[in-house]
Amino acid sequence: MGPGPSEVHPEVLEVMSKPLVGHLDPAFIEIMDEVQELLRYAFQTANEWTIPVSGTGSAAMEAAIGNVVVPGDTVLVPGNGYFGERMAQMAERAGGDVSVIEGRWGEPIDIDTLQTAVDETDPDVVCLVHAETSTGVLQHDLAKAADIVHENGGLLIVDCVTSLGGVELRVDEWGIDVAYSGPQKCLSCPPGASPLTLNDRAMEKIEAREEPMRCWYLDLQLIADYWGSDRSYHHTAPITNVYAIREALRLVAEEGLEARWDRHEQIASSLVEQLEALGLDTYVSSEDWLPTLTTIQVPDSVDDNAVIEQLRTSAGIEIAGGLGSMAGEIWRIGCMGHSAREENISLLVDAMASSLEDQGFEPMVD
Amino acid sequence: MGPGPSEVHPEVLEVMSKPLVGHLDPAFIEIMDEVQELLRYAFQTANEWTIPVSGTGSAAMEAAIGNVVVPGDTVLVPGNGYFGERMAQMAERAGGDVSVIEGRWGEPIDIDTLQTAVDETDPDVVCLVHAETSTGVLQHDLAKAADIVHENGGLLIVDCVTSLGGVELRVDEWGIDVAYSGPQKCLSCPPGASPLTLNDRAMEKIEAREEPMRCWYLDLQLIADYWGSDRSYHHTAPITNVYAIREALRLVAEEGLEARWDRHEQIASSLVEQLEALGLDTYVSSEDWLPTLTTIQVPDSVDDNAVIEQLRTSAGIEIAGGLGSMAGEIWRIGCMGHSAREENISLLVDAMASSLEDQGFEPMVD
Repeated sequence: MGPGPSEVHPEVLEVMSKPLVGHLDPAFIEIMDEVQELLRYAFQTANEWTIPVSGTGSAAMEAAIGNVVVPGDTVLVPGNGYFGERMAQMAERAGGDVSVIEGRWGEPIDIDTLQTAVDETDPDVVCLVHAETSTGVLQHDLAKAADIVHENGGLLIVDCVTSLGGVELRVDEWGIDVAYSGPQKCLSCPPGASPLTLNDRAMEKIEAREEPMRCWYLDLQLIADYWGSDRSYHHTAPITNVYAIREALRLVAEEGLEARWDRHEQIASSLVEQLEALGLDTYVSSEDWLPTLTTIQVPDSVDDNAVIEQLRTSAGIEIAGGLGSMAGEIWRIGCMGHSAREENISLLVDAMASSLEDQGFEPMVD
Repeated sequence: MGPGPSEVHPEVLEVMSKPLVGHLDPAFIEIMDEVQELLRYAFQTANEWTIPVSGTGSAAMEAAIGNVVVPGDTVLVPGNGYFGERMAQMAERAGGDVSVIEGRWGEPIDIDTLQTAVDETDPDVVCLVHAETSTGVLQHDLAKAADIVHENGGLLIVDCVTSLGGVELRVDEWGIDVAYSGPQKCLSCPPGASPLTLNDRAMEKIEAREEPMRCWYLDLQLIADYWGSDRSYHHTAPITNVYAIREALRLVAEEGLEARWDRHEQIASSLVEQLEALGLDTYVSSEDWLPTLTTIQVPDSVDDNAVIEQLRTSAGIEIAGGLGSMAGEIWRIGCMGHSAREENISLLVDAMASSLEDQGFEPMVD
């Protein structure tokens, strides 16, 4: 119940113990086709370039940013969370000239602020985070953001690590040019092969690069030969992880995306209600709340780590503290994929109540 | 029985279906310690910086080259196989000025040629391939090569993808500064977390870098905070793959490294004898032969792909054709880890005999 990895579905774990076929075996090529088709459904896109990147979520992030940003590009990144800072670091290494869109941790980027930043900097690439795992904030209005970026001729990259398969995401309808995610969040799949999708406009920019992407391993011009129609060798794919993500995506399709979004919202709402009943406060306002990751303010009198440790050792439940500047300020509680179940919420709330009591916490109920 | 992935040991497959713990959970930190200790044994090194990189073998290759090569460095790469070419591409992207050590496909790099190349170019970094997976050639005299490189003040990086756990490799005794491998070859582990070791001299160069490594995901200055004593978050580790490599390395330790090297040599010798008895010729001379990957010349009258397909569909056995310029010239047959068993050799030789007969091949026995 932390910010990921979430609990893996038993059927996904089971396929990980299947014997390997080669990464160029016709049987594996079929699996690759299926994974691509299922990923398109999960992202709600018709993009040809929809693949699992051979690494964990940050590898997909760098495959997106490192390929799309060419040296000299002006790049905007969001200033409202930890992962916007990571995007900045990657964009700088790609040779980008990076500016930060003003924002506060715990709030989404304001669309008017985005408009102003775009007007001022004329960016080639704009990065946003759909679901900020460091703060539990949902970025609204991605369709409007895409319009603003496109009217100015740029490309929009969106971090969907904690949204894919958990909250509403419509890549094509909203006009997102590039989106990536991790499998270990709302897909409930072990990390190791990470979703990425790019539209033709983004791929055309990549194919026109004069200087190759700075990382050979993540170079989409080369990877295109393997995941494209050639299916020729680039690097050995993480075969077992590709089996796993196929099964995880199959379960998403079986449940249905909209039913899955609803389930996350319902279960997470129940979590928030029950935690508020204990006298705890959410860190993020209800309008900006991200169902897949709820952040709770640590009461003044309470040691955040003591609670985390007690939950882990006494109840076998993982939750996390704040990242970066939020350390000590918040707890981060995930409701992702297979973890998002009513019985998990009950176990967590009971353990939390007991731990808070041990800490001498007395809720100030209105 | 191809050039990898090899057949995974059932006990390794089994641990891949274990539930996940978080990548910062104390239980996982213990697993990390064990993996590092077991990797040190497999590499025969005391290097502190011995870790699994979060990606497949090429990610470990780029973590080695991309971190050790700083812009402006003179870099030597071997000219005797496909993977030397890949090293060149990665070194160029890292900003290196790359020269090729003259060599022929199918032969190791000659030590005198290496000496001449070092004298002529004064390299900061020299790359060699211990076990060339494209040709089945074993690079001898790595200890001598290390002396030559060190006398000139440079660092030696060695590709051990198809040697670690399969043929004799002694990182510390031979004086190798940086070595990397893949788990899906002689460790018989699914790809996804790949061995890398660096000595203090290499790490000191990395820590002194003025310009950061060009790929954030593979930056050892950052990864050091996770795999070093801090154990602080960099990226989500591929948890299941780390479970798997721990089990695979445990099996290596249980068998004993030297016994394992002997087994590979014996089984692969038996393979070569039996294939020669069918009238086939090895591509590499017996002095340079790599037991873990045997290359066989495709007879003039035979269609290499037809044999590969027949083995796959009729016998369920995978072997591979030549890579790059060797396409159509050779077959590549792996004897790696759990695949290196006498019964596998018998099945393969029988299937090969039957397929060659179907192709109308008549051996010219002396």
